[in-house]
Amino acid sequence: MAGPSPILVLTTGGTIDKQYFDALSEYQIRESTVARLLEIARVTHPFRTRELMRKDSLELTDEDRQMIRQAVADAEESRIVITHGTDTMAQTAQDLSGIEGKTIVLTGALAPARFIESDAAFNVGMAFACCQAAQPGIYITMNGSVFDGLHVAKDRERGSFVTTTD
Amino acid sequence: MAGPSPILVLTTGGTIDKQYFDALSEYQIRESTVARLLEIARVTHPFRTRELMRKDSLELTDEDRQMIRQAVADAEESRIVITHGTDTMAQTAQDLSGIEGKTIVLTGALAPARFIESDAAFNVGMAFACCQAAQPGIYITMNGSVFDGLHVAKDRERGSFVTTTD
Amino acid sequence: MAGPSPILVLTTGGTIDKQYFDALSEYQIRESTVARLLEIARVTHPFRTRELMRKDSLELTDEDRQMIRQAVADAEESRIVITHGTDTMAQTAQDLSGIEGKTIVLTGALAPARFIESDAAFNVGMAFACCQAAQPGIYITMNGSVFDGLHVAKDRERGSFVTTTD
Amino acid sequence: MAGPSPILVLTTGGTIDKQYFDALSEYQIRESTVARLLEIARVTHPFRTRELMRKDSLELTDEDRQMIRQAVADAEESRIVITHGTDTMAQTAQDLSGIEGKTIVLTGALAPARFIESDAAFNVGMAFACCQAAQPGIYITMNGSVFDGLHVAKDRERGSFVTTTD
Repeated sequence: MAGPSPILVLTTGGTIDKQYFDALSEYQIRESTVARLLEIARVTHPFRTRELMRKDSLELTDEDRQMIRQAVADAEESRIVITHGTDTMAQTAQDLSGIEGKTIVLTGALAPARFIESDAAFNVGMAFACCQAAQPGIYITMNGSVFDGLHVAKDRERGSFVTTTD
Repeated sequence: MAGPSPILVLTTGGTIDKQYFDALSEYQIRESTVARLLEIARVTHPFRTRELMRKDSLELTDEDRQMIRQAVADAEESRIVITHGTDTMAQTAQDLSGIEGKTIVLTGALAPARFIESDAAFNVGMAFACCQAAQPGIYITMNGSVFDGLHVAKDRERGSFVTTTD
Repeated sequence: MAGPSPILVLTTGGTIDKQYFDALSEYQIRESTVARLLEIARVTHPFRTRELMRKDSLELTDEDRQMIRQAVADAEESRIVITHGTDTMAQTAQDLSGIEGKTIVLTGALAPARFIESDAAFNVGMAFACCQAAQPGIYITMNGSVFDGLHVAKDRERGSFVTTTD
Repeated sequence: MAGPSPILVLTTGGTIDKQYFDALSEYQIRESTVARLLEIARVTHPFRTRELMRKDSLELTDEDRQMIRQAVADAEESRIVITHGTDTMAQTAQDLSGIEGKTIVLTGALAPARFIESDAAFNVGMAFACCQAAQPGIYITMNGSVFDGLHVAKDRERGSFVTTTD
């Protein structure tokens, strides 16, 4: 645990950033709500945010994942939070394996942050704490648990993340 | 990090649980909002909650702190979250020192959880992750930081927590 | 104006009742949020709610509009609020013309009621007041205005309702 | 009913504008939330707001009520909304009697607008519609009802407004 060690927040899209547009009668992923969420949480811990893309995680390509990996590897910060759609969050975690010396935490939300009842603030809070308190490695913080990022999957039927054994 | 290790949430009151009562034109600390907050966060991680008291932390007595310490020491769980008023949170953390083998995290809020703009969900999310990811010891999660619970103070003028050096 | 004259609230769907479903990565119209909204507004005025359908207003058929008209005509109450999608709200208002002795107010929302920033509560509040304070007739309450329901249209580009002259 | 007739919103304080201050561990009435509330409601109807005072309504003096009356009488607008604390709202309504040709609506909230669960948006929506739809006179819009402002009282035990017969 090191109080003043700065955090890099990479945003990639996902449900957490979905906004509703009446003119289109549809939802779209928009500018990330993370900065606003950290303001409401009265965060004084040093951090910076960087938007990598605005995509539903089912639409992420190999090139997108390569870009995420590069952004993590190149970062001066050793504590990284990545906001991400939930459907392929575990796959992106896998693709980040092998980066040494960094504590990398992926998180997102099952309900958009703009909803009154959203898991977004709780989940990003978990990610902020996990990247400060955990050993270097890859983690996912969802549904109240800190998961090993290499042994976790989204159970679509239950709508929650679960530990995998292999 | 151990996914299925259950968490005990002890509630003691504080700003996080303040509710407004029109009939009295005043605010009072009421039944904790933590259970509702964990439901909105879609927490599937095993936990139980126990209400110890409903007090402004400036009103906590030595007996109250002894009761908190006893509840932590007696708990079967090794991962403990305590919601607490912010004014004397650091003092209670000090009084918990010397309990072996447990990861104890105190948190609270600078704005009531019932407000649209509250740090409550983010802070409790931090505490949930910290008690899973950190080594045994005492921590405070406020303002986006995981603080060493024995070297932290609330800076009243700035309205935020800061690390202390001694 | 007659304080205790009861209000009938008919719900037909629309954006106001859209909920997000992660499993489907899409929004659907669900059970109406109106009852919950009236509870939060601490409404003690007598009312009852009746769900007629759960449809996007672009999907309403002639049969649906006939059913709405019948529900209004058959109602014991002389004060009627109808929640409705915005895209064809003006058309349904037209189809209600000719019903005598009732004050009928259509309203809805441009952002779902489940959003932190929604016009739903304000708009339904307008409808509740309009059906008590206005002369019998057909009205639409949107964007802060009480519109004559027979001379109003949704301006899609501006995303708001405007008075029409013919 | 006249769509484009502008509305004057006078703010005087009350629970609706109460904000919580951690540094003081108390609530205070602050800059009015009405402008923000009208923005979220996507109001395009012409209006202007004017802050008269920031007081708990139990603290309003005869001079304060004289100032409110003067602001109403002097206004170019014939449609007036006044946000006000609930405890003496009926008394202020009485003091406004005798102003000709204006539709004056007092409203407020039993829970602060900054709360997730507040009646503020609904009540101000009612006031906006009432001042457009009702005949000139004095009204109070609370608890889902449009009350005759000269025959209404707050029932403190029930925490709601009721019609009075004399």
